[in-house]
Amino acid sequence: MGAGVVEIVEVGPRDGLQNESVILDVPARVAYIEALAATGLRRIEAVSFVNPARVPQMADAEAVMAAVSRPDGVSYSGLVLNKRGLDRALATGLHEVNMVVVATDTFSARNQGMSTAEAISATASIAATARAAGLSVTVTVAAAFGCPFEGEVRPERVAEIVRQCADAGLTEVALADTIGVAVPQDVRTLVAAVRAETSLPLRCHFHNTRNTGYANALTALEAGVTALDASSGGIGGCPFAPAATGNIATEDLLYALGRSGIDAGIDMTPLLAASAYIEERLGHANPALLGRAGVFPPGEAS
Amino acid sequence: MGAGVVEIVEVGPRDGLQNESVILDVPARVAYIEALAATGLRRIEAVSFVNPARVPQMADAEAVMAAVSRPDGVSYSGLVLNKRGLDRALATGLHEVNMVVVATDTFSARNQGMSTAEAISATASIAATARAAGLSVTVTVAAAFGCPFEGEVRPERVAEIVRQCADAGLTEVALADTIGVAVPQDVRTLVAAVRAETSLPLRCHFHNTRNTGYANALTALEAGVTALDASSGGIGGCPFAPAATGNIATEDLLYALGRSGIDAGIDMTPLLAASAYIEERLGHANPALLGRAGVFPPGEAS
Repeated sequence: MGAGVVEIVEVGPRDGLQNESVILDVPARVAYIEALAATGLRRIEAVSFVNPARVPQMADAEAVMAAVSRPDGVSYSGLVLNKRGLDRALATGLHEVNMVVVATDTFSARNQGMSTAEAISATASIAATARAAGLSVTVTVAAAFGCPFEGEVRPERVAEIVRQCADAGLTEVALADTIGVAVPQDVRTLVAAVRAETSLPLRCHFHNTRNTGYANALTALEAGVTALDASSGGIGGCPFAPAATGNIATEDLLYALGRSGIDAGIDMTPLLAASAYIEERLGHANPALLGRAGVFPPGEAS
Repeated sequence: MGAGVVEIVEVGPRDGLQNESVILDVPARVAYIEALAATGLRRIEAVSFVNPARVPQMADAEAVMAAVSRPDGVSYSGLVLNKRGLDRALATGLHEVNMVVVATDTFSARNQGMSTAEAISATASIAATARAAGLSVTVTVAAAFGCPFEGEVRPERVAEIVRQCADAGLTEVALADTIGVAVPQDVRTLVAAVRAETSLPLRCHFHNTRNTGYANALTALEAGVTALDASSGGIGGCPFAPAATGNIATEDLLYALGRSGIDAGIDMTPLLAASAYIEERLGHANPALLGRAGVFPPGEAS
């Protein structure tokens, strides 16, 4: 891997907090997002427009977006699963909506109450409206590397899902290892299969559930992916398993990238401060390691 | 990375336990080693012949080696830092001695009370005696990817250390990221630099201190390294930092290897049992993730 640049999409305020048992109030979520926006991060998944009865951690997305400051150059995105969610999102002045298509029918039914094919159709309709409103529109293919219910997922199936979604006028497609089972070889195989179906920019979303997340992230960049999701602190692990990890941690990823000569445009010191803030609010140790281990060589953090 | 084989050297009983605050008695250490020997692991670093006043966790190496069963095909190694340690090791019927040369003078002085050059000389003398006694002899170059006192370590310096050690008649050289700072690019660079100086088999030793250990391990194999150190459970992290990790975990590495089509000849189910045993004896959660997350697809563990 040589010198280069990469875009990190910070998903702590959404995918991270959504999977924590502690429910934060609006001011705490706003403070967390603003701390992240001060690090140099240019893309932040800030909220989710889903049913608050199902995901209470993500309630009050409108209040969060009304309160949060909007620094120049920072793009906020929100998760949208249906037309109702899109209407809410459009009213908040978001820059980007992210939709989800689960790669297997079983998981799709449990997550969104529809088949994969139905989710692709819904995505096309939402994407058209969002694009007309001037927003960036991305689709995340969830369980793209494996499904907790159906097991292995064929790369050809994921590539076909991407091909069908790409027709909807997206700005980017993300491949998500939702349950953290992939290894670098899987990443190379799937990125190549998807690349054959679309010229859209590709993003990857890794969880470190089995300690392969960082290897996968670095491999994805070698394979041509231009953006990576990560959550500050690595928050979002199941709160009932102390060492279980959520998303790969933004600071640990930033360390690996920086030492590899890859510029993510993010300052480590304020990023570690944002992670320390959310760790204190969540009341348990972050899975991220860099905050404890420190940068190397010492004193290098900007 | 394609199909292949790799040798895993299990270092939990030595590098793992040495860095835990709980001191286990001889029967517990013997039970742990025997549980590991039943997994298919063929190389186990079982003991250390250092001063028990400095490393009380490793006291009574003779008693451990006298009690432990010796299954066919399992090679036990012990850490030896000087002539006194070698004399003790030779009396126990070990198969292999492992020596350490620290790549920087400052760290070497703190670790062994001598400069790097002096450690290389001592190594040559010990190696000659051990080889004459029919043992395998390996040298681990510690702090090969970075030093906690001197910072960056030049690959040329490590390559020169390896060149000088190789003259002593070794069977293998190991490159250790003792403080867990390396990224895959560092691994590629250092392995190439060392390979230019010796045709000896190369082993790597990674800590997951900054979440780069598994990426480094997979990269080392791609770069031609044929053996990897790992500790079951990932034990050996500093006991005063809950999420700080020690060596890369044998089970997490085995998962990544298996899914990459690389055979390590180890059965996951008894390995997880060995990790569960040592977790209970140490009284805190292992950093390894696979025991909690489970294999994928479910039910695949042998």
